[in-house]
Amino acid sequence: MSTIKAGIVGYGNLGRGVEKAIAQNPDIDLVAIFTRRQPDQLASDSGSARFEHISAAEQYIGKIDVMILCGGSATDLPEQTPALARMFNTVDSFDTHAKIPEFFESVNAAAAQGGTVSVISTGWDPGLFSLNRLLAGAILPEGKEYTFWGKGVSQGHSDAIRRVPGVKNGVQYTVPVQEVIDRIRAGETPDFTTREKHLRQCYVVAEEGADLEQIRQTIVNMPNYFSDYDTTVTFISEDELRAEHQGMPHGGFVIRSGVTGQGTKQIIEFGLKLESNPEFTASVLVAYARAAYRLRQEGQTGARTVFDIPLGHLSPKPAGDLRRDLL
Amino acid sequence: MSTIKAGIVGYGNLGRGVEKAIAQNPDIDLVAIFTRRQPDQLASDSGSARFEHISAAEQYIGKIDVMILCGGSATDLPEQTPALARMFNTVDSFDTHAKIPEFFESVNAAAAQGGTVSVISTGWDPGLFSLNRLLAGAILPEGKEYTFWGKGVSQGHSDAIRRVPGVKNGVQYTVPVQEVIDRIRAGETPDFTTREKHLRQCYVVAEEGADLEQIRQTIVNMPNYFSDYDTTVTFISEDELRAEHQGMPHGGFVIRSGVTGQGTKQIIEFGLKLESNPEFTASVLVAYARAAYRLRQEGQTGARTVFDIPLGHLSPKPAGDLRRDLL
Repeated sequence: MSTIKAGIVGYGNLGRGVEKAIAQNPDIDLVAIFTRRQPDQLASDSGSARFEHISAAEQYIGKIDVMILCGGSATDLPEQTPALARMFNTVDSFDTHAKIPEFFESVNAAAAQGGTVSVISTGWDPGLFSLNRLLAGAILPEGKEYTFWGKGVSQGHSDAIRRVPGVKNGVQYTVPVQEVIDRIRAGETPDFTTREKHLRQCYVVAEEGADLEQIRQTIVNMPNYFSDYDTTVTFISEDELRAEHQGMPHGGFVIRSGVTGQGTKQIIEFGLKLESNPEFTASVLVAYARAAYRLRQEGQTGARTVFDIPLGHLSPKPAGDLRRDLL
Repeated sequence: MSTIKAGIVGYGNLGRGVEKAIAQNPDIDLVAIFTRRQPDQLASDSGSARFEHISAAEQYIGKIDVMILCGGSATDLPEQTPALARMFNTVDSFDTHAKIPEFFESVNAAAAQGGTVSVISTGWDPGLFSLNRLLAGAILPEGKEYTFWGKGVSQGHSDAIRRVPGVKNGVQYTVPVQEVIDRIRAGETPDFTTREKHLRQCYVVAEEGADLEQIRQTIVNMPNYFSDYDTTVTFISEDELRAEHQGMPHGGFVIRSGVTGQGTKQIIEFGLKLESNPEFTASVLVAYARAAYRLRQEGQTGARTVFDIPLGHLSPKPAGDLRRDLL
């Protein structure tokens, strides 16, 4: 079987996850990992991957079918996706919601020029959650929709905790309020802000001799980050933090509660429970890398989102098998 | 705005649901309802629909963009879908899983010949549940998948109850076993048969003076239908049946429990909780009717399933709005 030749751009948590996900998909081969660091000073988790400096990407035209971009949305992807889309099919997880329209236009122009397909903003939110918001809204046009995130680690809030004087280390979890979820699942459609739907749980390692009550007060009253939320602060030891809070779990729910006919209640729910946010996001990227390759094989070019792609393109199985086995 | 002109074929529970769903979608107009009965003896729920005999369908070529077929899978759709696909874009809910490949081929040939698009086997299972089985399997290739149905009325099992001597009326609900769902949500991946995952609850109105214990024994020991399941029989009055068991609720879950990397657990879950099975199925059909029309506008012809259709085509909103608002 001829395989899809993939490259990874960026080797942080997400890039490492993509390397693992490719190993689970026999129809995709990893050709090389591209980095801005010194490639000869990197070793891959699998031990067998080839590293290249990002400036060498051009030499891989014709040798790589799709580049899986694992950089950040703030500064990496706005540059990298258009630059690479001129040479390769790409897939990325650009997640700055407000800038998606402008990012789409920029990538679309580059991909059209390069004669490639670029799937932007995939992963789980944006990505699978977006798909479910669209699907549920199209089926139940009269209804209300709720997105919950968590339980999961928020990097920005964890950083904010670690900047508090007297704090040695800390992790913050965003947690959906179970009572709110239960009310919605029971058919109620209350109005809730993101703040009312989520709690913030902080696990903090204090410096020796620090004033714990003062740390707690500083955290729970921190504007923007914590002051408007129900926030709990739990002090733990460095050992406990290492043992129990090193993972990157996440997840959440998209729930649409709608009505058909004369007030008939109908509820559609999609949920994720993830032990590793980056490994899961990586698995979504790899499935959409397959789709990007397929779309290009069909003669398409330009930027695409999860809304534009038939789900059959995500699977390695032929359409006839999918109809027979999964429909 | 120019609207999509739709026809309904068949006016049972599903056809009635489609009429209501069309009323919720301003971009779709109902042109006529086609029936095998005497059209002048039918009145629509809305009071305003036009009825036509099914034999008059041909006269609507050019006046109807898409026919929404609401017949049964046993005998109606295998005839009606290919016949109408030669003249119109169609959408149906053909759900005889084992015969889907052969049905697809027959409809595909008719639609290719007619220059139309036919979306087959949509609704929620097959349909939305199929989409989620495909999506979750493509993202988590190493994993196990569970489909649960219910709580919902099973028509075949309700009929079986009503044939038991001494039974005046009855309804049967298929109910997923909560303990099994909880174990899977907690990350276990046990092997379960459909039987182990579901209970059967029977609500029975007995004839005056009937032997209740004998009815109970006949039901719980009925081969194929009940004997292999945990089955409960509750006797109720005709009034209670009318008051509390006249709805057609249904729903269920598709859960995939997979691993990424080195045994990292990841769970994807999709669930429905429906007060009316036919009204919900109808709402899915209407969204896919829009997609069938769009695909034809793009120049496509032939049979399609939910696997082949970008979800963006289900929404009345333009692609740019979807990216801005939902991604």
